[in-house]
Amino acid sequence: HPLLYTVRNVIDIDRVKEQVEQHASRSAIVVGGGFIGVEMAENLREAGLDVTLVEGNAQLLTPFDPELAAALAQEMEHHGVKLVFSERVQGFTSPAQGGIGVKLGQNRVLEADMVILAIGVTPDTAFLQSTGIHLGARGHIIVNEAMQTSVPHIYAVGDAVEIRDLVLGVSAAIPLAGPANKQGRIAADQIAGIPSTYKGTQGTSIIKVFGLTGASTGSNEKTLQRHNIRYQSVIVHPSSHASYYPGASSMTLKLLFAEDGRILGAQAVGYEGVDKRIDDIAVAIRFGGTVMDLTELELSYAPPYSSAKDPVNIAGYAADNILAGRAAVFTYTELQGYDPKQSILVDVRSRIEHDNGHIPGSLSIPVDELRDRLNELDTQKEILVYCQVGLRGYTASRILSQHGYMVKNLSGGYKTYKQAAFRPAPLV
Amino acid sequence: HPLLYTVRNVIDIDRVKEQVEQHASRSAIVVGGGFIGVEMAENLREAGLDVTLVEGNAQLLTPFDPELAAALAQEMEHHGVKLVFSERVQGFTSPAQGGIGVKLGQNRVLEADMVILAIGVTPDTAFLQSTGIHLGARGHIIVNEAMQTSVPHIYAVGDAVEIRDLVLGVSAAIPLAGPANKQGRIAADQIAGIPSTYKGTQGTSIIKVFGLTGASTGSNEKTLQRHNIRYQSVIVHPSSHASYYPGASSMTLKLLFAEDGRILGAQAVGYEGVDKRIDDIAVAIRFGGTVMDLTELELSYAPPYSSAKDPVNIAGYAADNILAGRAAVFTYTELQGYDPKQSILVDVRSRIEHDNGHIPGSLSIPVDELRDRLNELDTQKEILVYCQVGLRGYTASRILSQHGYMVKNLSGGYKTYKQAAFRPAPLV
Repeated sequence: HPLLYTVRNVIDIDRVKEQVEQHASRSAIVVGGGFIGVEMAENLREAGLDVTLVEGNAQLLTPFDPELAAALAQEMEHHGVKLVFSERVQGFTSPAQGGIGVKLGQNRVLEADMVILAIGVTPDTAFLQSTGIHLGARGHIIVNEAMQTSVPHIYAVGDAVEIRDLVLGVSAAIPLAGPANKQGRIAADQIAGIPSTYKGTQGTSIIKVFGLTGASTGSNEKTLQRHNIRYQSVIVHPSSHASYYPGASSMTLKLLFAEDGRILGAQAVGYEGVDKRIDDIAVAIRFGGTVMDLTELELSYAPPYSSAKDPVNIAGYAADNILAGRAAVFTYTELQGYDPKQSILVDVRSRIEHDNGHIPGSLSIPVDELRDRLNELDTQKEILVYCQVGLRGYTASRILSQHGYMVKNLSGGYKTYKQAAFRPAPLV
Repeated sequence: HPLLYTVRNVIDIDRVKEQVEQHASRSAIVVGGGFIGVEMAENLREAGLDVTLVEGNAQLLTPFDPELAAALAQEMEHHGVKLVFSERVQGFTSPAQGGIGVKLGQNRVLEADMVILAIGVTPDTAFLQSTGIHLGARGHIIVNEAMQTSVPHIYAVGDAVEIRDLVLGVSAAIPLAGPANKQGRIAADQIAGIPSTYKGTQGTSIIKVFGLTGASTGSNEKTLQRHNIRYQSVIVHPSSHASYYPGASSMTLKLLFAEDGRILGAQAVGYEGVDKRIDDIAVAIRFGGTVMDLTELELSYAPPYSSAKDPVNIAGYAADNILAGRAAVFTYTELQGYDPKQSILVDVRSRIEHDNGHIPGSLSIPVDELRDRLNELDTQKEILVYCQVGLRGYTASRILSQHGYMVKNLSGGYKTYKQAAFRPAPLV
């Protein structure tokens, strides 16, 4: 179909640009909500088009866990990109009035002046099948640490090779420019007799979504679950820099870690300083670091850049408190199993905050009143506390546990709960 | 003197602000070019005052080596702050027409509506002298890793304590907010029975100087020399993010490292992304990392944030090339010993770049012509090559060494040479 575009390289992008500029396309449907799809949707929207993004999963950008991906999706909607989730494209139509139609389930058709397909990458390695070069199950080229294939003197680097996942130690295919670049240099070193080796890819990646930045490194929850790895998580919402200095904004920073403290992954979303914090944690992961190490990192602080406790330190402190048994947390997904017969859900924010929106079924006891209102809490029940971002909830959990309660604090607080509840507006 | 201000706390700053706002001061002299002095000068200048900064040393901001400090000084001058270096204040005068005078050497007097003293900090610990709490040679409180003083049950944290220099392993006093904050938490942990310890301070610090950022971590050259530690250095000028994406600017990034590759320190100056790169290196230092480790860091890359080779990777590659013997470098300070009888200084930039400014006495052979003009270079002499930032010089050094020449490349190139040559404009 002439109005159906794929985007794999600069020539493809030139064709899209020509379609927009020469043929005055006013609307586009982007199919696929990965990095390329989101970047295409963002750029077409910035160029003034009416843009709809269709994604088969229930979230954008699968490197991110749902509650962080939701913040990025909300930013897209806020900038006028229409989102359609959990819908797979069934085919295309040619509407009588021109343009192109995208068939979804239940015979619904979306129409636009053009469609962009950004539905992932597969290695184009069929031509290697009878060469003796070993390929992986999904067609990726198998290489060793020296970037050598199974055929002597033949090296392979880049998106089509299978490498070691640095965090999980398993084989993986992670198509990213940074790793590809490093692999190229290592292959060149090897050819020149320099014994460089490639230790593995940790999947550090980043995306600009209008004003927001999303970045991640290491494994996410879905990957850890798929590999049956036990982990814990923490979500904090620290300020990008000292809040008394102009321009500070809060970010969401999530840390995934093993029971021995080893950092397994991190994700962040925010308007400023997200790249820096994910890179700091990426370096710590490269060195096999723990969440305790994060508490000790000495990062540059002046008010325009950070706080005396950097967001990375704060995430480390929160995780260390969990591992040391000083604070128990629960996640927003665990609220689904909330049973009022066994637990009491307590909002420890101020009354005004509570009235402006709260988790259904929660009792309002501001943290400052908590010591005086303990008699309202049944000592036989587990207490689930939450505040806006998790800090007052932590204080409340300490007060309650010192009074003998079994208590857990909502990781990331009401802010994360609300973020996770985002669903795209229905198309009109 | 009523027009003489010190700046130690918020109350002091309120007094300065009142002087500016209520008494309409139009000019100020800041004495001292450390972090506080530079920040005061910047803020007073931003408030519209005519500002002169007087510094006793030949450079501002001694945590930075001279060539990086020079870039920050130039930014101050560019924004209208007048600089006076290598001048010590002899006293103050009360001019007949009002205001305050600052006496310098040779009976020169600078006059202004107010003077700010920002001439460093000393520990105010005289009251501890007969308590049995051990103090260091300069009056700092001696503590152990648990932040305990020599008197049981008495802890000390913050600017007045002597801690371990993380890089050098020696005792040091490094007054910074981040370390003070961490020490406070560690003392509290200890008091609560949690065995946290403070491992040491690496001196990570940062300053905003108008549009520029300067940041550093670990030791600088002066400190390493004072401790007789052998080190090598490299200076690179990479782009803050992919140069084809709008808004990229180049930064100066300097790395100091031991012969076994261990990172000893780093400094950077630039308009964007400086905090991120120094923090990445600060994390690597915390883990005892080497320059080889820096080449392997997998940092977040999309064009608005970095390049596939991050500046930190590039600094690592350049340092690794030196340690592996693939490239020899010389620094701008070594040009002072340049002897044309023994060496040939070659500018490998384009003819136009050479004509626009070059190091006196250098021969112009653009790198693209080098292979054809080898006959112009005496094989008995050492060849010293330079380009704009060091990259073409590296290529030239590889070409020449493969032809049997002894060759060294100027670290940081002509850009660093020019930066280092900055001297404040004389006062008129």
